[in-house]
Amino acid sequence: MKNLTPPIEWVENHIRIIDQTLLPAELKIVEIRTAAAAVDAIDRLAIRGAPALGAFGALALVVGLDEQASSTFGAATRRLEELRTFIGDARPTAVNLRWAVDRVIDHAVSSTETLDDLRSALLAEALKVAEEDAAACEEIGRLGHELLRTAVTIGTHCNAGRLATAGNGTALAPMYAKAEAGEPLRVLASETRPLLQGARLTAWELDDAGIDVTVLPDAAMASTVLSGKVDAYIVGADRIAANGDTANKIGTVAHALAAREAGIPFYVAAPTSTIDAALPSGNYIEIEERDGSEVHEIQGKRVTPEGVAVANPAFDVTPQNLITAIITEVGVLRAPFQVSIADALLRAGASQ
Amino acid sequence: MKNLTPPIEWVENHIRIIDQTLLPAELKIVEIRTAAAAVDAIDRLAIRGAPALGAFGALALVVGLDEQASSTFGAATRRLEELRTFIGDARPTAVNLRWAVDRVIDHAVSSTETLDDLRSALLAEALKVAEEDAAACEEIGRLGHELLRTAVTIGTHCNAGRLATAGNGTALAPMYAKAEAGEPLRVLASETRPLLQGARLTAWELDDAGIDVTVLPDAAMASTVLSGKVDAYIVGADRIAANGDTANKIGTVAHALAAREAGIPFYVAAPTSTIDAALPSGNYIEIEERDGSEVHEIQGKRVTPEGVAVANPAFDVTPQNLITAIITEVGVLRAPFQVSIADALLRAGASQ
Repeated sequence: MKNLTPPIEWVENHIRIIDQTLLPAELKIVEIRTAAAAVDAIDRLAIRGAPALGAFGALALVVGLDEQASSTFGAATRRLEELRTFIGDARPTAVNLRWAVDRVIDHAVSSTETLDDLRSALLAEALKVAEEDAAACEEIGRLGHELLRTAVTIGTHCNAGRLATAGNGTALAPMYAKAEAGEPLRVLASETRPLLQGARLTAWELDDAGIDVTVLPDAAMASTVLSGKVDAYIVGADRIAANGDTANKIGTVAHALAAREAGIPFYVAAPTSTIDAALPSGNYIEIEERDGSEVHEIQGKRVTPEGVAVANPAFDVTPQNLITAIITEVGVLRAPFQVSIADALLRAGASQ
Repeated sequence: MKNLTPPIEWVENHIRIIDQTLLPAELKIVEIRTAAAAVDAIDRLAIRGAPALGAFGALALVVGLDEQASSTFGAATRRLEELRTFIGDARPTAVNLRWAVDRVIDHAVSSTETLDDLRSALLAEALKVAEEDAAACEEIGRLGHELLRTAVTIGTHCNAGRLATAGNGTALAPMYAKAEAGEPLRVLASETRPLLQGARLTAWELDDAGIDVTVLPDAAMASTVLSGKVDAYIVGADRIAANGDTANKIGTVAHALAAREAGIPFYVAAPTSTIDAALPSGNYIEIEERDGSEVHEIQGKRVTPEGVAVANPAFDVTPQNLITAIITEVGVLRAPFQVSIADALLRAGASQ
């Protein structure tokens, strides 16, 4: 594959990201040099995707620490506690952000005693989060590729690709693996209103990599699946409960219902860092309600009548019984998910 | 209710319609004085909705006949045969258009012998199509109201309201009836990409009538329904096969799957003129594939990368086993639909 622009990169003490709000019209690189800029980038979805948010949030801690020169180790740890909340809470549904922020702060604070060491440990651990994510993507791609060996037409929703991770993506990683293996492949990408991550981002990154991709309105996926033209579905995840219930971009559960009706597999691809073992089921997952303007307006153009109400939940929960398997970096998890997930978390913990 | 602008009207030898492509930003009335203008209005969806297309197509025959002054009865009937194809085939999926055009031409040609009588009979029959549609809407509203008496939050898709008929709508007719009865009511309207008939038209006409309406992205309906917040679904239809399989706006079948999963009723509301008894099942319904630009662009703004493919089927087929009941002007039809539909067609024929 050709040399692709990295969606997230650490360069000389700052973070560089592709501003995803401008894709596909413009490929613009933004430099993040303050915690406020990082939170703003998260908030307006210049960077998004649960695993990418983990790596980005971790690196943003370094930027946030550098920004306010601390004179003592104690002052630096107090600053990190501010950043833990400020950056860790920037979006509520993706667990990876909070997970990475906690991990990097806790590791750096507990393993060092001087200011210099703290900063070094913080950066090293943040880069490790990104590297581990890239490695997880690689392994998810390999495992997903095995599962999807005979699938030609594959449906996906939103964007769980290079633009959503620090590597080759989660749901899209097997597509890249299939393409590299020279297997026939056609990806159906639902456009993913309101913010069109499918039409804008998945279409852009797959096309950029030379993979055949067709964009459909969200509403057109179900009948396409029911017509028998789709071999499998694979989507990412923003948060997975201990029983396998999976929060992902709004609309995912409709695709899962169509997949079950058509009798095709419905795979979730996510690193184990996406699993929130503290949540017994999807009922406990907090669903972010985003601003109504995203529904009232499309790309800045008003489409609803003035004065009419809208609802704009950012995620939905797909119940575990609609999920064929969860593809993680430590293996392919199947029902009963309560057991396979607990086992995967043990193995993931052991490998770190 | 306040005095509402009629979406379709016969005024002094021409047709006046609301140009629905401009709603909700602008309420513009367009005059249709030629067959070409009529077909263009159908083609660009200035007028849409299966029952409205029936009434409009019927009236467009009069306009098309007047436009080319025929000197003899024979010349006029030949002109009508041209118009039968030209207007009747303007859109393939909605059966009402072809049905109304055939009915009006066949009645006028077979019941008259002079040019003047032919023209009079054509207009009278076309107006009768519109009046009968309004009466059918009224009855569908009454029957639907009975079924939805205890429902407060009701989901719908696309627009099957005043803007889609020559009356109070099909799926929306019970909403108007509930509102008039002073019953609590909250309508959830899916925005209906690609052309946003829900966000633009259903939201506009319900809000215009003072009914509480909330617009959701298509992808947000399933989880809302699964959360237990919706009491019932009601949608219109573009074509119903003899076994009850129903073609309606793309996305309808996804809503039907969610409704079944949530255990709430899923009603189809349509006049018997929407039933195509010649089709044994939904497999025989031709699905219109519309221009890809509707997916590539939203309200004129490009959202997909250049060179990427799109699919844009305008309708999908909801299998009859997902439909709780079909509400027609001659009664509420339930499974086995093969029987109830055949019976309804007999009764509809008898009442004409």
